[in-house]
Amino acid sequence: MANTDGFMDAALAEARDAAARGEVPVGAVLVLDGVIIARSGNRTRADNDVTAHAEIAVIRDASAALGQERLAGADLYVTLEPCTMCAAAISFARIRRLYYGAEDPKGGAVDNGVRFFSQPTCHHAPEVYSGLGETEAASLLTGFFRAKRED
Amino acid sequence: MANTDGFMDAALAEARDAAARGEVPVGAVLVLDGVIIARSGNRTRADNDVTAHAEIAVIRDASAALGQERLAGADLYVTLEPCTMCAAAISFARIRRLYYGAEDPKGGAVDNGVRFFSQPTCHHAPEVYSGLGETEAASLLTGFFRAKRED
Repeated sequence: MANTDGFMDAALAEARDAAARGEVPVGAVLVLDGVIIARSGNRTRADNDVTAHAEIAVIRDASAALGQERLAGADLYVTLEPCTMCAAAISFARIRRLYYGAEDPKGGAVDNGVRFFSQPTCHHAPEVYSGLGETEAASLLTGFFRAKRED
Repeated sequence: MANTDGFMDAALAEARDAAARGEVPVGAVLVLDGVIIARSGNRTRADNDVTAHAEIAVIRDASAALGQERLAGADLYVTLEPCTMCAAAISFARIRRLYYGAEDPKGGAVDNGVRFFSQPTCHHAPEVYSGLGETEAASLLTGFFRAKRED
């Protein structure tokens, strides 16, 4: 059985690290054959790059490490429901399974928003499992945005 | 009046260069205050990066050059209708105007597919102008895929 809890814990650790750097606290790990091959928090501020969401960061890092564009057979663990940009990138990378923590009604694109994986313009959809580590994933985000409002 | 034809010509030149490198021939330029600040063709193969579409490449390059995440006031010229991933990235980057060449019924996300800029989960939409350089943009793509099938 896959060590799903351990992998989501690793993604949550990346989210906490992102928060400590002043980034929106979302974290992700990419797993291939039971091994984490890339891990990252959201790093849009650090990189001055709106595309540097945790999911895109791990896809790019893993592809660079493996020297290949597509990541067939790889599983992505991310603490928040992927947005429209990341859902499409996950599809392009041929990710096998997507595990995500908290839903994102405002910006998500898997079970909310454009529901990209169910659209005719989506040409590969991963299996999706949600709710892992949801409580901690959501509380990291609400804590972060509450602190920002109080700044 | 903006030099829209000249900017789309520059994007088409990037698309032709991409084709010459064996990449899907899509090109883009990003313009700020009447000056091209980034130009790129699709480089997914060269970079081993499924996210390295021409639009993402110019957004990332421009942000790196300017040292800022968001590109408010910048206009993007791209030869093909942006896909779901790129439409969302364009929104995140706060691009002011999007000019695109050919429509993409199979993968586009502006006037086809998820029509992201009209969705409630899209929090910034650019003005959109389409059809500039459409004939050449489309013929580059059809020629590329015809040649691939004949390989």
